[in-house]
Formats: sequence, C-alpha cells, structure tokens
Amino acid sequence: MAKKNTNPVKGMRDLLPTDTLIRDYVMSIIQNTYKKYGFTRIETPVVENIEFLTNKQGGENESLIFKILKRGEKLKLDKENLEENDIVEYGLRYDLTVPLSRFFANNKENLPRPFKAIQYGPVFRAEKAQKGRYRQFIQCDIDILGDESSNVEIELITVTSEALSKLGFNELLIKINDRRILKSIAKMSGFAEEKYGELFIILDKFDKIGLEGIKNELIQNNFDKFKVDELICILNKLNDKDALNVLEDILNELDVNVAEQLRNIISTVDRNIESNIKLQFDPYLVRGMGYYTGPIFEITSKEFNSSLGGGGRYDKMIGNMIGQDVPACGFSIGFERITDLLNDKGFKVPNFEDKILIIYDKKEEGMFDNAFDLATRFRKENKVVSLVAKRKNVNKQIDEYKNLYYNKFAIIDNRNDFTLKDID
Amino acid sequence: MAKKNTNPVKGMRDLLPTDTLIRDYVMSIIQNTYKKYGFTRIETPVVENIEFLTNKQGGENESLIFKILKRGEKLKLDKENLEENDIVEYGLRYDLTVPLSRFFANNKENLPRPFKAIQYGPVFRAEKAQKGRYRQFIQCDIDILGDESSNVEIELITVTSEALSKLGFNELLIKINDRRILKSIAKMSGFAEEKYGELFIILDKFDKIGLEGIKNELIQNNFDKFKVDELICILNKLNDKDALNVLEDILNELDVNVAEQLRNIISTVDRNIESNIKLQFDPYLVRGMGYYTGPIFEITSKEFNSSLGGGGRYDKMIGNMIGQDVPACGFSIGFERITDLLNDKGFKVPNFEDKILIIYDKKEEGMFDNAFDLATRFRKENKVVSLVAKRKNVNKQIDEYKNLYYNKFAIIDNRNDFTLKDID
Repeated sequence: MAKKNTNPVKGMRDLLPTDTLIRDYVMSIIQNTYKKYGFTRIETPVVENIEFLTNKQGGENESLIFKILKRGEKLKLDKENLEENDIVEYGLRYDLTVPLSRFFANNKENLPRPFKAIQYGPVFRAEKAQKGRYRQFIQCDIDILGDESSNVEIELITVTSEALSKLGFNELLIKINDRRILKSIAKMSGFAEEKYGELFIILDKFDKIGLEGIKNELIQNNFDKFKVDELICILNKLNDKDALNVLEDILNELDVNVAEQLRNIISTVDRNIESNIKLQFDPYLVRGMGYYTGPIFEITSKEFNSSLGGGGRYDKMIGNMIGQDVPACGFSIGFERITDLLNDKGFKVPNFEDKILIIYDKKEEGMFDNAFDLATRFRKENKVVSLVAKRKNVNKQIDEYKNLYYNKFAIIDNRNDFTLKDID
Repeated sequence: MAKKNTNPVKGMRDLLPTDTLIRDYVMSIIQNTYKKYGFTRIETPVVENIEFLTNKQGGENESLIFKILKRGEKLKLDKENLEENDIVEYGLRYDLTVPLSRFFANNKENLPRPFKAIQYGPVFRAEKAQKGRYRQFIQCDIDILGDESSNVEIELITVTSEALSKLGFNELLIKINDRRILKSIAKMSGFAEEKYGELFIILDKFDKIGLEGIKNELIQNNFDKFKVDELICILNKLNDKDALNVLEDILNELDVNVAEQLRNIISTVDRNIESNIKLQFDPYLVRGMGYYTGPIFEITSKEFNSSLGGGGRYDKMIGNMIGQDVPACGFSIGFERITDLLNDKGFKVPNFEDKILIIYDKKEEGMFDNAFDLATRFRKENKVVSLVAKRKNVNKQIDEYKNLYYNKFAIIDNRNDFTLKDID
C-alpha cells in the first residue's frame, strides 16, 4: 500500500470542523436575518450549459470558466483542426447573478412578484491561487426582481447591514453612488461613450491613488488632457459632503430623479438602522461589473478597513434572456472575506447549549452502555454529547474537544462517579 | 432581444422557494440530530483531481464522471492520436465517501480520534436522466473513522433512526447483515472468490424475485447448478427469524465474533430507540458498493415501502490512501428520496413564528414608510415579514404567499387600520 497524493485540487480547500463551526454560524446569522425580511432561498445547478456561461454577461469571469467535456458519442477527438468548442458541453458557474437571470426567465410564472431571492453556494474561477483567493468559494447573494422602486435598495441595504451588525461588525460604512451619475460625469467631461468602461476602471482606484493619481493614469492611457482636466474639475466639486444636495447644479445633464432617489434611500435607511452604521453618497464608487444600470453600493468595515460586500441595480440583464426588461437589484455579502476576518481576530462561536464530552473505559464491562444511557439523557435535553473511549492521555483527548467548543466532560469508569466537570 | 434557452442542464434542477422550504427544514432536522450526537461537519471541494476519482474505489460510478478540461498551455489539442486522458485534469465528485478518505488522509493530524464527520453537498453522475434520478443531487452522510468497535454501528443506527423519526417517518425497519456472512455463505456453497461480486449482485434482488428467482438467474448466468442448490439450501436455513442465534451452527466457517457483534448491535440499539423502530438481521441484504468489509445496513419506511438510507463498515479504503488501515463506518441518508416522499404526501413545514405579509399602497404618500416601520417592529420580535406594493388583485397576491406558509397579512392604505388578519 503506497502513500498517494491526498491534497485537494490546487486553490481549493478541505474545510475542517473548526472551519465549518464558524462558517455555519456566520451563514445561519446571515440567512436568519434575510428570512426575517421575507427573502426565500432558491438554487440553481453548479453546472450550466457552456453557451449560456459565455454569453457576455459575465465580463472577465468568462475567461476563468472550468469547462466540462462532452461525453460518449458526442465527443469526437479525431476531428481535424480540433478546437475547444468542439469538445466542451458544460461549465461550472463563476457567479450566482448570471444563473439567477436564467432561473427567473425559466420559472417566472411560479414566483411571487416582486421576487426576493436568497442564493448561496459554491462558484468556481480558474484564477491564480493566492492567499484569500480561492478557485472554489461561497457566494452569498440577495436579489429583488420585478420592482423598479427605491424601496428595493432600502430593503437590501437595511437587511445587509443588520446581518453584518449581528456578526459583530460595528463600525460599518455603506457607500452609495449611481451608474447614471458616473455616466453623466463622463459625458460632461466630453468622453466618448465607448471609453466609459476604461475610464470607470481607472476611477475605481481613487481610494488607492487619489485624484492626482487618476489624472496621471488617464493621461498615460491617452485620454485627452483637456477632457481629463474637465473631469478632475467636476470630481473636485463633488468631493464635498454636501454634494448630493447640489448634484443637479453640478451635473446639469443628469436625470432629476437620480439624486432624489439617492436622497430618499439614504434618509429612509438612516431612520431604520442602528446609529453606528453610516450610509453616505460617494461619487467615486464604481463597482466592477458592466451590467449595473442604477444605484450601486458597497459596505465596508472601518475596523478592518475592508469591503464586506457590495451590489447594485441591473435592470437590463434579464431582458437579455427573455426579451422583456425586468427591474433587478442585488446585494452580495463577501462570505469568505468575513469568515477570514473573524478567524483572524480569534472569533469564538457562542454555545447556546452545553457541549459535553463523555469518556468511557472500554476495557471495563458495561461502561459503554452506562455512557450511552447518560448521553441519551443529555441529548433529550438538546445538549450536544460526544462519546469517546478513554485513551492513555485523557488531557489530550479533552483538549481535542475544547477546540470544538466543548465546555463539560465526564469520565465513566469504576473510579469516577459520572459527575460533569468544566473544561477550562 | 430574442428569447433564449433558459432551461437548466439536462437532468439537473432549478429549486424554487417551495422546494427549498421543505429541503432546508429536512436538512436542519437531520443536521441538528447529528450534531447532538457529537458529529461535526467537514467539507471537501466539488472538484477533485481526475487520477484520484478514477482510482477504482468508486466502482461503476467512475464511468459516470463529468470531466473537466485542462486549461491554457497544458491543453494541447493538436497532439496525434489524442485521447481523453490527454486533455482532462479534474472531475466532479460522484459521492462523498471517496473524497472523505482523501480528506482524512490529508488532515488526520488535526482531527479528533475517533473522528465523527457530517458531510452534505452536491454530487454529480452523468446518468440517464429519469424521474427521481438526477445528475446533480445532494448526498448526506455521517461517518466515524478510527474506531473498530461495534459502538460505531450502534451510534450510527441510533442517530439516523432518530433523525428520520423526527421527520415523521414512523414505521421504520432497519435491516442489518455483514459482508463476512455473505462471503461465508458463498464460500460454503463452493463458489470461487472471484465470482462473489457477481453472485452478490444477483442475491441483492431477493426482495423483487424471491429465492426461486435467484436460483433461476444464477443458473442462467452459468453458475454451477450443484453449488447453486447448496446456496439455496443455506439461504433457506437462514430464512428464519431466529437465524442470528444459530448462525455459527449454519455457517461453521464464520468468524465467531461476527454473529456476536450483530447481536450486540441489535440489543443495544433496541434498548435506546423508540418502540416503533425495528432493527433486524437480514441475511439477504447486500448493499452495492464493493468497499464494504463488515456490518452493512439499510433503513426502510414500511409506510412508503421505500429505502431511506444505508451504509456499512469499510475498514480498508483509507488504507489504500495512506498505506495504513483505519477502521471506518458510515450511514448515508437518501436526502432526495426523503424530500420527494414528503412532497408527494403534501408535507407542510411547521411555522415556529408568524409569517406576515404587509401590503402597502405605493400610490399614496408615506405608505411605504408606514409599512416599513411596522415591519421593523415585527422583525424585532423575530417574525418573518414581507413588504409588497399592492396590485389590483390583492387576493392573488395573498395566495402567492400562502404557498410560502404565510399565515397573516395587513393592508396599509388610507382605508385600512393596519390590523393583522389571518390567511386561511
């Protein structure tokens, strides 16, 4: 019997009990909060048809698809000038939003309107593996489909900040912007519409490189210097905490509803969330995906200086599937990031019931039976009980279970009297 | 905008809120029961290296693997006499037991001994799609690794029957046998060891074709008639409710411990489970997988005449991975079967809190704000609240939510007074 390679696939992880205890706790807090707000869970398969995954909704993620081979007679490897497309049938999903649009198109007759969806599950991207970036990871999204009103943004932002607050993230800052504001800024500066994408990607670096850095990078990338100066001038005017109230004056091209919607979202959310959570307009917020059409938002922890999630409105995506636009807006929580942060700060999952380790001497007649009877009694009281046979080093045994949050133990042999002792 | 194909991949499913409400309830009952017994959840990636998946542990399932293409420079499609092996790097797992053995080998230093694992998650088999058989489905397993004693079988059978009993399956029958008994029967009948596999597959049909059918099929398959007669004679002797007590007399080749172990398992479980659950010896029970080495068991619902799960001991599999045998035993619950049965019988998920639908008139000023304030109050009491804008047909709106177990509603407009009414 030779030892074999027992590592998981590169960039993917085995999750141990100490990992899943935290992950399951985090997920239950998030899900219970979502459910209280009337969201219901749906699920799509991990596997999708390859034509669907490569229909240009997924942006750069489409270059990261794990592709699944055709099978049986469909797979013809002796074809001349064989190409990848000849041999691939399916792929692994790279996100949950693109499949959601297919799901909605396929099941809309059987869904309540508006439809408030929870999705969580593994997604797959063939990225270069590195710390904090995995090739299989959990996404955790909520989306509201079929409602064009700002009430949707209000609910999404309120429920997400409540969930993160319950997980102990106290100093939360939610930034909000609108794609239409970004487009208006670009238009007023004089840039052509086909350059907007490239422009926004550079604008997104504001946090790292500042206005001066943005200016330099744009000029290096052959953006017209005169237009860049105009852009910087507008951005300077917007860099004011009162900017949202004078938005129509600065951006006279902008639809009058846009600023009004943002003001409404901010004031309603403010009234309903805890005082240590702050929602503010940020004209520099961009968000990566090209499918956004309206408000976009991102939630960050000031304590960790880290983004914990983001989202926005994408009113055109489902129209691409079914030939008729359906308003849609979503908020995605960075589940992997959140569990990594909690792990780094030594987070302990709270025990709601005792967790009891019963150690029995298997060499003595009847001890397993005694231990099992005692365990049955505790389990009837909803306590968690593990039964293990006594090893030589009992202290090491108890330590193994301390890591799994066990707080009591008993030793069942002829020298002990079944009393529970604390694990400290 | 043209309408596109929006179906999921053939043989895979979109799960709607009405599906997931039942599935999540069933899973929570099962998981909470397992956790009370000290099992902890682990997780392996959905994707495994292809060499690992095709190492002969998976039996016939290995012919059903969805295979993932190599990427980038590794993929050379212009090679002469190209074969599948040249272009495939990974595959989707077809079960959770084979990955568990890799997981244990890879992480054994960081796991408590014995290790009591929960696993649930999607597995994939490229089978012909048909009713009740899916190409992506959930498996739900518990396994105990590192304990050779019968206490393991006792715990696995007890916890599984408790979980199914809590789901409302009342008339449960657990059949138990041992691979060593089957081998002893085959040996005493005079069959060669290399024929055991084929023999056991036919023996497994006893429930459907009876002893006479087994005899005919064996002879048709060129088993020696004299040996077949001997086999039938032994099986006839074993077809007696007292067979386990005289097993050593009938099978004088059998290790004396085998019957003693089964008797111990049956008597201890009997003492600890509810009286409407029955555990009995069944010498005709075979179970499909070739990796079983000791006790095997299957749990069936008499009410539905259907298997709800099964498992057994496989003491050699991990040895194949790490070069050293580790005792192992598992019990798998048929999660998809169970949810299908509950759906068929019109099962309703119990509500532990009110689920309230608040319908507001969006055309009237301030009604959303009033509704949101009311919702916030109920949500603070842990009630589930959905906010929806009033449509013309309010009754249809209420009906959509009745299907999601909503039991109360209120209409917020200038003509109503916010009082909750029952949905009936």
